[in-house]
Amino acid sequence: MSLTESSAVDIAGTASLASRRLATLSEADRNAALSALHDALLKTKYSILEANSRDVEIASRAVESGELSHSVLKRLDLSRAGKYDDMLKGILSVRDLRDPIGNVTLKTLLDEGLVLERVSCPIGVLLIIFEARPEVIANIAALAIKSGNAAILKGGKESTETFVAISQVISDAIAGTQVPKSSVQLVKTRDVVSSLLAQDSLIDLVIPRGSNDLVRFVKDNTKIPVLGHADGICSAYLHSDADPGIAVKVIVDSKTDYPAACNSLETLLVHHDVLATVFPKVAEALFARGVSLRCDSPSKAALLRTLSTIPADLLQDAVDSDYHTEFLELTLAVKTIPSTSTAGASVDTAIAHINAHSSKHTDIILTSSKEIADIFMKGVDSAGVFWNASTRFADGMRYGFGTEVGISTNKIHTRGPVGLDGLTIYKYLVRGSGHRASDYGEGGKSWRHESLPIV
Amino acid sequence: MSLTESSAVDIAGTASLASRRLATLSEADRNAALSALHDALLKTKYSILEANSRDVEIASRAVESGELSHSVLKRLDLSRAGKYDDMLKGILSVRDLRDPIGNVTLKTLLDEGLVLERVSCPIGVLLIIFEARPEVIANIAALAIKSGNAAILKGGKESTETFVAISQVISDAIAGTQVPKSSVQLVKTRDVVSSLLAQDSLIDLVIPRGSNDLVRFVKDNTKIPVLGHADGICSAYLHSDADPGIAVKVIVDSKTDYPAACNSLETLLVHHDVLATVFPKVAEALFARGVSLRCDSPSKAALLRTLSTIPADLLQDAVDSDYHTEFLELTLAVKTIPSTSTAGASVDTAIAHINAHSSKHTDIILTSSKEIADIFMKGVDSAGVFWNASTRFADGMRYGFGTEVGISTNKIHTRGPVGLDGLTIYKYLVRGSGHRASDYGEGGKSWRHESLPIV
Repeated sequence: MSLTESSAVDIAGTASLASRRLATLSEADRNAALSALHDALLKTKYSILEANSRDVEIASRAVESGELSHSVLKRLDLSRAGKYDDMLKGILSVRDLRDPIGNVTLKTLLDEGLVLERVSCPIGVLLIIFEARPEVIANIAALAIKSGNAAILKGGKESTETFVAISQVISDAIAGTQVPKSSVQLVKTRDVVSSLLAQDSLIDLVIPRGSNDLVRFVKDNTKIPVLGHADGICSAYLHSDADPGIAVKVIVDSKTDYPAACNSLETLLVHHDVLATVFPKVAEALFARGVSLRCDSPSKAALLRTLSTIPADLLQDAVDSDYHTEFLELTLAVKTIPSTSTAGASVDTAIAHINAHSSKHTDIILTSSKEIADIFMKGVDSAGVFWNASTRFADGMRYGFGTEVGISTNKIHTRGPVGLDGLTIYKYLVRGSGHRASDYGEGGKSWRHESLPIV
Repeated sequence: MSLTESSAVDIAGTASLASRRLATLSEADRNAALSALHDALLKTKYSILEANSRDVEIASRAVESGELSHSVLKRLDLSRAGKYDDMLKGILSVRDLRDPIGNVTLKTLLDEGLVLERVSCPIGVLLIIFEARPEVIANIAALAIKSGNAAILKGGKESTETFVAISQVISDAIAGTQVPKSSVQLVKTRDVVSSLLAQDSLIDLVIPRGSNDLVRFVKDNTKIPVLGHADGICSAYLHSDADPGIAVKVIVDSKTDYPAACNSLETLLVHHDVLATVFPKVAEALFARGVSLRCDSPSKAALLRTLSTIPADLLQDAVDSDYHTEFLELTLAVKTIPSTSTAGASVDTAIAHINAHSSKHTDIILTSSKEIADIFMKGVDSAGVFWNASTRFADGMRYGFGTEVGISTNKIHTRGPVGLDGLTIYKYLVRGSGHRASDYGEGGKSWRHESLPIV
């Protein structure tokens, strides 16, 4: 075993042991650790900001030389107004959420004196790998402790100094509480990550937060279940009866509110019958925000026919790959959905396009018909399906989850924004007094199988 | 692309399309398909039994020549009293279970006119690989249709004739209903399985039912999430205050009711203080049933001291690997848990042994103390943790789930016996009237985040 391997086994092993102890702590003990974490980060604010300023300085030079994007620098800077205080507030809001552990979700009387319960419990050990955004460390440590899971965290190299400073504060703060110290461990070197991804008997879930490349690398290199999403290819379908005002508001917000986000709009499907009516209004509003439209021929022809002026370069021809592309900038692919004898058939075509091209993140429909909306919401196989509302609402804070560890496009375990519930599983408990299974069945005792009230 | 590959893509692709249509069907449509399936299998009973007799004949010869075990032959034979009728009854009981689809599990008013719902929905496409037991085909087809999932089924080679006959009946029966024909597809050749395991963009979940080797092969050869369990290493901890009568009843039942089952007992942990009191009673009852005990030195010495007669060969020395072994026969590993000043420390030692050695399937404690039982039930990281009840209760039918597709030792998605609920996921639906995310946040509108009643 190499040094990195043995260090990975050591990290994962101590995390696993810590997780078993964490799982038995009371809510009060876990909350006390979150209060301690908050207080310690408040007290050390200036030394952490100082460490952060060193990261920012190095990053600024990298931006000047063109090696780093400006947006990474922006995300790195913890001294921006309100950012540090938001991080502190986030810890307390997670602390004050309802305990996700120990909830009974099923209770059945199997037979006299024999009771089955399904009770929520922590998953165990989480490995969370993220880039930039140093405040995420505190956020995720808080979510892990609240949900009774041990966490192994690996930050991006741009935030190394901040990361080390925050991690030291977290370790010291936890040391004075019931939460075992190894519950939150921080990994600094990149080479240990590959070895950690091999610890599938000790680590229960990997959550990569960052670029599509990071997520794909993780998915391709581990047998541990991965929670997250690579692409966020979100689509809107503009149906023939869409309200023009609603369509403009929702589509412009979905595309322009924050184009680099995974819940931004990338593809617009337009019903043929509104190519010359609602669609030009939408296109005009998008052009005004500087959005380029990559149109198929019918939609392009419709704009050329109906709009007197189109800003230079903003009307482009779509190629097939545009409908599979997450642009993450002010570009939108447009495709026409043919008109059919029944409205139902058009919505089916839109659904089929989305199920074949979207990344199962969030897709929306603009229509005045509840019936058409229902068909769309049942038929689209995505984590979020919205009617007359912006794709940008797909977010843990906006859903009222307090915060999130990420957004999942998985189709098992948890889907969409992942808060505390997504970090739990359950176990089945049976309490008896000497009950034997062999007493039941043919010629033996009968099952009661009565649902009991859950208090 | 080879012929097998293209056939796998074709099977998975049509299953995926069928799954989208299935997801939009009403409960009545899905139930009608189950009634049709039941009626068709009732009408064709004799031709299916005839096909089965051909499988049984070939298998009998294989048993005679020592190539096949007698238990496989027994499982294969559909003509045994009640077996076919149980299969038919099983379809109707799945049909009559509560609809697992379309249930709202969370409803939040995000803001005026903007409502978030979390609604249960099918996962999509399931690939189910199983050995022997031909009646499982009907069972699993029923569970898949009821939960709105498309299923690709691969049976064992011993049941080929039966499998082909049943599958033809299923296809014909479904053809006359709203359920798309490709919703249940049956794969006959083994070589297509490897190609199907590569279709991770079309298949959402693999469920292997069979030997540990089958499960391991599947886990090692796919990126699709796998639901199931390889080993079933279940343990019992006999605490110092265990009631002797309860201990004997529960341990004997756990070990001997059906030793080849995954929920049978494989390891017994004995508190030092009861080595000479309760343990010999348990051992005597086990010896009387022909169970061999593989004991560590303290437990062996205690039996030699306390029992006047021990059947020849049934008392053996344990080696380390015994505590990691799923015997699946009348053999039980025994280990002593040292006595400590506090009872809590002993139960912690037992918990630590189980978390390090068990397969996270089902583990039990024998104790008269609710406090000790609670510590054990919180600390053991297994799908089932029972107090004074047999490990053999870990079963979907016994839990009141109607039936099961298998037992999961996974720590995400679903754990323990998997019924209809384990075959669903959820999606988030948002309904608005032109709501923009950019209107919220600093200086903008506030969130309501009010929990709404779920009707």
